[in-house]
Amino acid sequence: MVEVSIVGGSGYSGGEALRLFLGHPQFQVKTVTSESYAGKPIHHTHPNLRSFTRLKYSRIEQLEPTDVLILALPHGESQSRIRSFLGLAPRIVDLAADFRLKNLEYYQQYYDTEHCEPKLPADFVYALPEMHRDALAKGNLYATPGCNAACAITGLRPIFEAGIVKDGRVFIDAKVGSSAAGAKASSASHHPERSGVLRSFKPTQHRHTAEIVEQLTIDEAPEVHFSATSTNSVRGILTTSQMILNQNVTELDIRSIYRKRYEEEPFIRIVKERRGIYRYPEPKLLFGTNFVDIGFELDMATQRLVVITAIDNLVKGSAGNAIQALNIGHGWPETTGLEFPGLHPI
Amino acid sequence: MVEVSIVGGSGYSGGEALRLFLGHPQFQVKTVTSESYAGKPIHHTHPNLRSFTRLKYSRIEQLEPTDVLILALPHGESQSRIRSFLGLAPRIVDLAADFRLKNLEYYQQYYDTEHCEPKLPADFVYALPEMHRDALAKGNLYATPGCNAACAITGLRPIFEAGIVKDGRVFIDAKVGSSAAGAKASSASHHPERSGVLRSFKPTQHRHTAEIVEQLTIDEAPEVHFSATSTNSVRGILTTSQMILNQNVTELDIRSIYRKRYEEEPFIRIVKERRGIYRYPEPKLLFGTNFVDIGFELDMATQRLVVITAIDNLVKGSAGNAIQALNIGHGWPETTGLEFPGLHPI
Amino acid sequence: MVEVSIVGGSGYSGGEALRLFLGHPQFQVKTVTSESYAGKPIHHTHPNLRSFTRLKYSRIEQLEPTDVLILALPHGESQSRIRSFLGLAPRIVDLAADFRLKNLEYYQQYYDTEHCEPKLPADFVYALPEMHRDALAKGNLYATPGCNAACAITGLRPIFEAGIVKDGRVFIDAKVGSSAAGAKASSASHHPERSGVLRSFKPTQHRHTAEIVEQLTIDEAPEVHFSATSTNSVRGILTTSQMILNQNVTELDIRSIYRKRYEEEPFIRIVKERRGIYRYPEPKLLFGTNFVDIGFELDMATQRLVVITAIDNLVKGSAGNAIQALNIGHGWPETTGLEFPGLHPI
Amino acid sequence: MVEVSIVGGSGYSGGEALRLFLGHPQFQVKTVTSESYAGKPIHHTHPNLRSFTRLKYSRIEQLEPTDVLILALPHGESQSRIRSFLGLAPRIVDLAADFRLKNLEYYQQYYDTEHCEPKLPADFVYALPEMHRDALAKGNLYATPGCNAACAITGLRPIFEAGIVKDGRVFIDAKVGSSAAGAKASSASHHPERSGVLRSFKPTQHRHTAEIVEQLTIDEAPEVHFSATSTNSVRGILTTSQMILNQNVTELDIRSIYRKRYEEEPFIRIVKERRGIYRYPEPKLLFGTNFVDIGFELDMATQRLVVITAIDNLVKGSAGNAIQALNIGHGWPETTGLEFPGLHPI
Repeated sequence: MVEVSIVGGSGYSGGEALRLFLGHPQFQVKTVTSESYAGKPIHHTHPNLRSFTRLKYSRIEQLEPTDVLILALPHGESQSRIRSFLGLAPRIVDLAADFRLKNLEYYQQYYDTEHCEPKLPADFVYALPEMHRDALAKGNLYATPGCNAACAITGLRPIFEAGIVKDGRVFIDAKVGSSAAGAKASSASHHPERSGVLRSFKPTQHRHTAEIVEQLTIDEAPEVHFSATSTNSVRGILTTSQMILNQNVTELDIRSIYRKRYEEEPFIRIVKERRGIYRYPEPKLLFGTNFVDIGFELDMATQRLVVITAIDNLVKGSAGNAIQALNIGHGWPETTGLEFPGLHPI
Repeated sequence: MVEVSIVGGSGYSGGEALRLFLGHPQFQVKTVTSESYAGKPIHHTHPNLRSFTRLKYSRIEQLEPTDVLILALPHGESQSRIRSFLGLAPRIVDLAADFRLKNLEYYQQYYDTEHCEPKLPADFVYALPEMHRDALAKGNLYATPGCNAACAITGLRPIFEAGIVKDGRVFIDAKVGSSAAGAKASSASHHPERSGVLRSFKPTQHRHTAEIVEQLTIDEAPEVHFSATSTNSVRGILTTSQMILNQNVTELDIRSIYRKRYEEEPFIRIVKERRGIYRYPEPKLLFGTNFVDIGFELDMATQRLVVITAIDNLVKGSAGNAIQALNIGHGWPETTGLEFPGLHPI
Repeated sequence: MVEVSIVGGSGYSGGEALRLFLGHPQFQVKTVTSESYAGKPIHHTHPNLRSFTRLKYSRIEQLEPTDVLILALPHGESQSRIRSFLGLAPRIVDLAADFRLKNLEYYQQYYDTEHCEPKLPADFVYALPEMHRDALAKGNLYATPGCNAACAITGLRPIFEAGIVKDGRVFIDAKVGSSAAGAKASSASHHPERSGVLRSFKPTQHRHTAEIVEQLTIDEAPEVHFSATSTNSVRGILTTSQMILNQNVTELDIRSIYRKRYEEEPFIRIVKERRGIYRYPEPKLLFGTNFVDIGFELDMATQRLVVITAIDNLVKGSAGNAIQALNIGHGWPETTGLEFPGLHPI
Repeated sequence: MVEVSIVGGSGYSGGEALRLFLGHPQFQVKTVTSESYAGKPIHHTHPNLRSFTRLKYSRIEQLEPTDVLILALPHGESQSRIRSFLGLAPRIVDLAADFRLKNLEYYQQYYDTEHCEPKLPADFVYALPEMHRDALAKGNLYATPGCNAACAITGLRPIFEAGIVKDGRVFIDAKVGSSAAGAKASSASHHPERSGVLRSFKPTQHRHTAEIVEQLTIDEAPEVHFSATSTNSVRGILTTSQMILNQNVTELDIRSIYRKRYEEEPFIRIVKERRGIYRYPEPKLLFGTNFVDIGFELDMATQRLVVITAIDNLVKGSAGNAIQALNIGHGWPETTGLEFPGLHPI
């Protein structure tokens, strides 16, 4: 068994990682830290795990050397503590934003601060297996994508690789559930205020834009226009991406582009039906799963392509990519521990 | 115009009172206080009132003499400040629990503290117009009922008056929206935690039990068993009350009991249809209204009566009773300012 | 009192019109027709109106001459019956799509059929008062906008009038509640399937696109790219519109454009705050109201403007525009019968 | 591998059974029938299974002999076809109500019809493993409990076995999600109508009452008063059961009763915490799982016990019991294929 410890395990991403590790046949969870809940049982914050583990939260200084270390800390903390973590485990996965961006100018622009370990991001593989499988197989430092970025990139990258996006310009509108904002209560997350909302929270300058730009760059940086809207959901992201194409293609061509790019991918499904109520991707069908469902529609009159992509923000948008990357890194079947098919109805 | 000021107006009950006063042809809102938001415009906390008032929050010490004073303070604060409020206005409505209970033993038992103005509760009329209309007409100190209590009492009082409840024993299960817990965020109200819940929050010892007991007492105190469950709703309460009857009656008898008791009541509707999807009361149809919808069903085999009652907790469960009581007190038509019919669908 | 009858009153738009007319001091509702529910009381389908009217549904052939006729029929039926309706009332409001489009090519393209009264659309005023107030004052045939169109157009028209949209190209993403699809149940509207969805329903070729194009045409037709997503809401639309500007402007310039265009408008509010949780428009705050709340954000780096607009689809997106237009047509204050401020929290 | 076929597999219970069988290491799904969808792929109705099976629906006459047959037919159909099914498989699980009740008088009273196979119910084991494990191990005909019944019985049986319920009288209020009413759309399930409801649907005479009575009978039949309320949830049931006890006991005694009765049960958890937001059972934490979470609270003043029980209606309330019973019948570990821990947050 491979030993894994989770730093900052009381949040939603940490909890989801823990759920997946507890059900994974190759991993044994050793330590889970939380400064706020040290000494309390895990199920105090993750009630779904009530009968699945007797672990209690430890403090960060109680961490011992382990095989794999998962960092589920608030953005910014991973980089300030990374030197000590590197001494604790040969393999590290950071679920935060600290090591995702290779271009430090983007980091500075979007996070409005200097990176305190400017040489390290280059050592971390952007843990989106569909884009960086080989690097993940060889690497041992992984940075999982931001949830909106994971959703948008998987839907768009094949289209950008095909070189058919006019001016490289895309308009992305993300609909996001409340768990994406984390486990900490605020006036904005107070149920009477948040319930039933359709609330813009970042029409411009969303930090995930930088990742999308970086990961959609083929020869030159694309022009990515991103806006995000909070919804009533707890889990799930749906991105609707609109772009004008620079040549006459058909829906069959688009389907073919996706099929070629993704036919071996275990977690990507093209969802495009002629009829029925499940014609397009829907995030609620993916709760708890590592799937990316991708749909599309082409307006022939204007050569406008609409790409619709759905994920669970806590799985394929966070902890699921970590597990998938670790499966690749260890040479295990990629779907190990990620077999849950999702629920319907829900 | 009658001048009204609201003390503690930034919460949900205060905001609802303000909405109703701004739409009431006889009232002019003079001052609204909030210690947390003093100096900020009203719409900072009540965004629905954005274009309806230019008032800003004042501090409590800025209150000036006025015709009517609404107290929308946290439970316990009304009684500690009541002496100064009595000097500011000839007519006071307290939306909190401080002056609802006449029996101070109940107060002590359920609120676990001594009342600091033990002589005053007797001067306050329990502002449930369907029960105390005459007293409201003569009085000038009103204490509006607790939301669950208002819902349960209006549904049950006619049945208890009829003397047909076996052993005076009733089991009440209340389903309650999140706004009933107030405007302050907490970990329990964090959207990812609260969304979609069916969560017991007070299976026994709920404070509103005391009011229900007091208001259902005819000759002797009834045996009231109350439990409450949080739901995904923001507004609205549904109480399901079950009791065994002490004699053979029919549904027609029950209908007749309600009709006689309530036929002149402008805000009570008996909802009992043979078919259709609106056969029973539903709180969502009452959002924003002052209605109490009452339904019932009798199990002839066991002489069990189920009474189902729905209200909007912020209107008939709080501010609406205040307005209705003030209409009575001023001799205006009782529905003045309370004409909103509710929305469908919603 | 002005007499009004509603044809096809059992649906959601018809019901909302009825709610508004019953609360309007100048109107008396004469007849409401429904083929399916003829003979049944109104509250059988509109339970919120239970104690507000004793009317029963009539058949369409029972219609008598009246002052105002509201057509709330399925799309296509208004045009096939319009000749007989014209003989019944001097003033007609069509809530359906039949007379919205002046350009019959658009009609044919988007509705995939010939118009059976091709000369009549020109006689109908597009009943969006903010755009056609003078024509409404003079006219007596009104066609209310589609719900998505009303939302998008009010947000975008001032920007297009300012001539600052690059290539006249805009990408609109609409988030829409379930009531927009009408009162008829289907497998797609079955609660276990529809609850919690974020479901694309018309990524391209949405019919409301034609209206938006027509109403945003200044000198030439704009390039409108529209997609729509179903949400968990029952009411409410939020449109997020993204466009690149053709010149350097600031947010102050944008604010000034809106202020100049809309400062006299009673139902348009610019919602743009620096802080707080109500910084942008939110449809849930508008339930039951005739408001359009408009917000915006400018990304200076790319000169991208995001315009965010919220309405209640059944009020400002349908029946509310009808009432507002009739107020204009009769010379009454424009807000008559439309004073409801909306609820918070909800 | 054991072969299993599902009759009537396009509904929600059949779909859930299919999800569980596809993830079960010992079962191979052979045939799934649906008269409405014959020839269509499974994922046409169960979109979560899109990449998990290539099966298509068959007609019922295409059924071939198999090891296990699951009947997921509308109530009444299992009994009329049972003779032919008995010839197809040595082991049958009926998910419908046809063979649950041993007392045919109850059947006739609650289902208002004669049973057409009156001798067969006695051959079926009531497939609630916590109550009938030994009989399930020996038997090969299983009838899974009704969802509300499974929830109520597991919470109440130990208390009734302890003989402490005064007069054997219990008042049960069930809060139920929309999936419990099945996959067929109706006006009551239309999203704008059903969303956000708290709607009584069976205050008296609910059919599941009969099962509860039968399963809580120790020496004599208890007095079960059951009412049910529809909620906004898709999945999940919460039952709140109130009863007066006939002797002075403490919460420790109650805890001890549950512990003794259930300490070996893999799917029953006692949820009772002093603090935190997960102090009581919550159905949303159980989505997709086979758990029963049981909580309780005792009002010492009145010796009233409130028992709160939560399940997923489609798993422990239906297909999950089928799998657990089959695990017992085959001698496999009882949790095989039922390991999913549930999601949080959700």
